[in-house]
Parts: sequence; structure tokens; C-alpha cells
Amino acid sequence: MSDGRPIGVFDSGLGGLTVVKELFRLMPNEQIIYLGDTARCPYGGRSNETIESFGIQDASFLESKDIKLLIVACNTVSSVALEKVREQVGEIPVIGVVLPGCKAAVTRTAEKKIGVIGTRATIRASSYKKAIQSIDPSIVVYGKECPLFVPLVEEGVVNHDITYSVVQYYLYELVDSGIDCLILGCTHYPLLMEAIQGTVSSRIELIDSAMWTAKEAYDILNALDARAEEDRDGFAQSHFYITDFVPNFEKSAERFIGKKINNIELVPLDQLADLVIGK
Amino acid sequence: MSDGRPIGVFDSGLGGLTVVKELFRLMPNEQIIYLGDTARCPYGGRSNETIESFGIQDASFLESKDIKLLIVACNTVSSVALEKVREQVGEIPVIGVVLPGCKAAVTRTAEKKIGVIGTRATIRASSYKKAIQSIDPSIVVYGKECPLFVPLVEEGVVNHDITYSVVQYYLYELVDSGIDCLILGCTHYPLLMEAIQGTVSSRIELIDSAMWTAKEAYDILNALDARAEEDRDGFAQSHFYITDFVPNFEKSAERFIGKKINNIELVPLDQLADLVIGK
Repeated sequence: MSDGRPIGVFDSGLGGLTVVKELFRLMPNEQIIYLGDTARCPYGGRSNETIESFGIQDASFLESKDIKLLIVACNTVSSVALEKVREQVGEIPVIGVVLPGCKAAVTRTAEKKIGVIGTRATIRASSYKKAIQSIDPSIVVYGKECPLFVPLVEEGVVNHDITYSVVQYYLYELVDSGIDCLILGCTHYPLLMEAIQGTVSSRIELIDSAMWTAKEAYDILNALDARAEEDRDGFAQSHFYITDFVPNFEKSAERFIGKKINNIELVPLDQLADLVIGK
Repeated sequence: MSDGRPIGVFDSGLGGLTVVKELFRLMPNEQIIYLGDTARCPYGGRSNETIESFGIQDASFLESKDIKLLIVACNTVSSVALEKVREQVGEIPVIGVVLPGCKAAVTRTAEKKIGVIGTRATIRASSYKKAIQSIDPSIVVYGKECPLFVPLVEEGVVNHDITYSVVQYYLYELVDSGIDCLILGCTHYPLLMEAIQGTVSSRIELIDSAMWTAKEAYDILNALDARAEEDRDGFAQSHFYITDFVPNFEKSAERFIGKKINNIELVPLDQLADLVIGK
């Protein structure tokens, strides 16, 4: 049996499109409904209460689009508000971006030492540490918040001397700790892959959360026998929504997803808020 | 005659406290009501429509506090939405942070070449250029958007090799253009004063918008005969509101205002939105 309904994906901004890129790579026939809350991004430095409130609004919007699966492509929301989002959307299966990368890292670390980098909220929530140690409590997890990485990516300063200085500034301690896996715990970070791998030792494997999250979605849809029919162009049928037409959003989106999106639509913030109040 | 009512000041976040610091330096007896929209900062990369909508909400909140003067301590709102804010608050006099720094720069430039640095929205709105050339059309204005400066200040990375690299990265062209005045067109930038002055030639005078805005407020209140009575501790009677208790907000506020604020209060976002709808 096939299920032609769309997959919902949201993020605080456009970074979650790195997850969508991986979804299309594995499942080009799936239709995606994407929401990026560009009017209020980034979420990473905000309080847990605010992150929860924004995440619930984002999820409600996608819930109203008759989705078959919800992917929280925002590490911050996945780290501090995944359960609240689950409660909000009821029956729809929900995947966050934290657990898939953790599972991959656990199977790969020989030294049993894993590093995690992310926004302030992600690292402070210790979500990766908890997820890894729930699988194998003997693994030591080193977290490091890297708040300047997102602005660097947003500015397109991803392969400059400054980028390398900032990567060095944040990561030198992690490298010294003896980790052999480093989880990129933010959807923006895959764009810094080259600078990060160039800075840390080549024996440290980088784990891209976006890729492993897409893999998890693929496994779940197959297990539920809920894949779309094969002869469909998923990208052509997908919808991309943002809450603010920020300057350069088209160029920025293209950087994350790797191709041009022609039909990005606006959802005003008050519409998001009303959906939750209306429940 | 004296007027004991408070001065309202708002910014997208805590940076506007640099203006409050200067206000207290000139008028320690004035009571301030400050609002920082920490749940949605920064505004600098958003669309004009969104900046306008957020700015009107912020202004409405302060208007409800019976203020005698409104200072828009946010360069972004001052640049793209000052007239809308004026319409919103009716009779209350409104000062933005753009014009005061421009007036100061115009009287100081011998070369008739002024540089302006700010957020993306501020520079793209050409607000400083328009304000300067409305005073003296023969002055050439060089604007440069510096989107990484705010994250650096927010991270407290203000006196590090990285800071100097980023300052150099943004300003080398401006320095070559022959300017003799450089306006710091963002409330965060006074904290980068040392790195900026250390990078540009010492013959370039830095113009701190925050300081000149406070001076303008002082002049206006005196002209209107609306200063508070002298024997009052303004700081002790002031109120500081934010829309989100972001991590480290107390430490961050202290960095901008130069002293500890003990009574920062929360205003939920839906309360802000309701004030405007209720008009």
C-alpha cells in the first residue's frame, strides 16, 4: 500500500533544508511541506519556554496540512521540546534530528568518546548526551556550544580565514579530548564540513545529523508501508513556507537545498499563533 | 515645570541599553521604561514589513506606560519604520538613533566623506545616507553592512584575534575610501569600539549613535521644559522588560548598561500583539 500524503518538515529558518535535501536524495518521489520560521530565527539562544511555544506553532501549521510524518529539522526544538511537539500532533509519527545522529555515532566510536557541537540551547539541554548514554552509558560525551557558526553560514563566510579561526577557537579543546566522532548538531553545520574537517584531525569522523535523520524517515516510512507511489516528482509537488521574506531568502535556500526553489510562500506569524489557539 | 513621567526606550534586544547608559549619564534623575524584544531579536536581517510590525508592537507597549518621550534605540527600526512608529504613538515625541549621529558626523567631517556601519536592514534602507545628505548633499556616504558584529558582541568575543579579523574583513574598503568619520550605526557596536579604532586609522573619528541620541533626548526634554524633578534616583525607579528570559540575559544586560539590573521583567509576546490589535 502506498501513502501519497506529504512529509512535514520544520526548522527555525532555512537550515532545515539540509534535511530536505537528504530526504529527496533517498526518496525523490516524496512530497514535502516545509516551514521555516524566518521571522523569528534563530531559536538557539532563546529560553526553553519560548522554543517550546514556537515549536508547537510550527508543528500545528504542518499538522493542518494532512502530513503522514513530521520531521523536526531544528536541533534546538528537537533538544528541548520534542515531547511537547509530539503531544501537539497526536497520532502523527514525529522524528527529531537528535536521535538519528546519536545512533550512528554510537555504532562508530571505537574510543567511546563522542563530541557534539550545536547552539547554546541544544548543548545546554544535554539532549545528545542523554540520547547517546541511553543507548550506551559507558560512552563519554563532550558537548560544545558554537554560537558563531550559524551567523558565519548565514553570511556565506564558510571557507575564509575567519571561518577557520572561529572553528579553531571553538574546537581545540574537543580535539584534545580524544573523541573519534563529532556530531554536527545543527542543520547549518554541514555547510562548514570542510572547515571543520580541515581543523580537527582526520581520524575524527563527522556525523551529519541531517543525513541520518533522512535515513530514519526512510526506514520508518518503509516499516509503516507508507511510502508514496514511485512514479512521482516529489520536489515539483512540494511546498515551501517561510514566516518572513527575509533578504536573500531564495539564494540562502538554494545554498542549503542545493537547487533553486521557485515557489516559496509566506505564512504570517499571526496565522501560526491562531492555529494553536484554535485547537 | 517638571514632568515626572518616564522616557520609553525600546530595542530588538539588549543592545539598546547602551543608549540607556548614556541617558543616565546625562540625566540620572529620569525614569526609564525599557523594552527589549529578546524573543525575536535580532531584527537586522528581517524584511521591512516584519520590522515595521515588530516595531509598532514594541512602541504600543511603551505608549501604554504613559511615557513623555519615546526613543527607538534600535537602528533597524529607526531606519525602516520610524514614521510608522510615529503614527502609532500619536502625540508622544519620538527620537530614532539615526539622525543624532548623522548631525554629529556632518559637523565633524572635514573631508566630506562619512562611513556608516550597521546591520543589513539598516544599510540597505540607506537611512543614514539620506539623513546626512538631507543636511549636506555634498557629503559622500559609504555604507557597509557588518552582520557578524552583533553575534560577536552577543558572544562577548570583543577583544580577540577573531574580532580583529572580522573587523578587518568588513572595514578595509571603507578605510581606503578616505572617510574621516565612521558612524557606529548599531547599538551593539560601542562594545567593539576598541577593535574598530584599533583597525581603522586613528584619523578616523568614531561616532557613537547611542551617545548622540541621549544628547538629543536631553536637548528635547529641556526645550519642552519636561525634565523630571532633580532629586530623584532615575535608575532605582526604572523598569526593564524583555519578551524572553534568554540564557545569560542578566549578564548580557550588565555588559551593555555597565551595571547590574536586578528587576528585569517578562512581557509575553502575545501581550505585545494584543496591544496593537486592541487599538
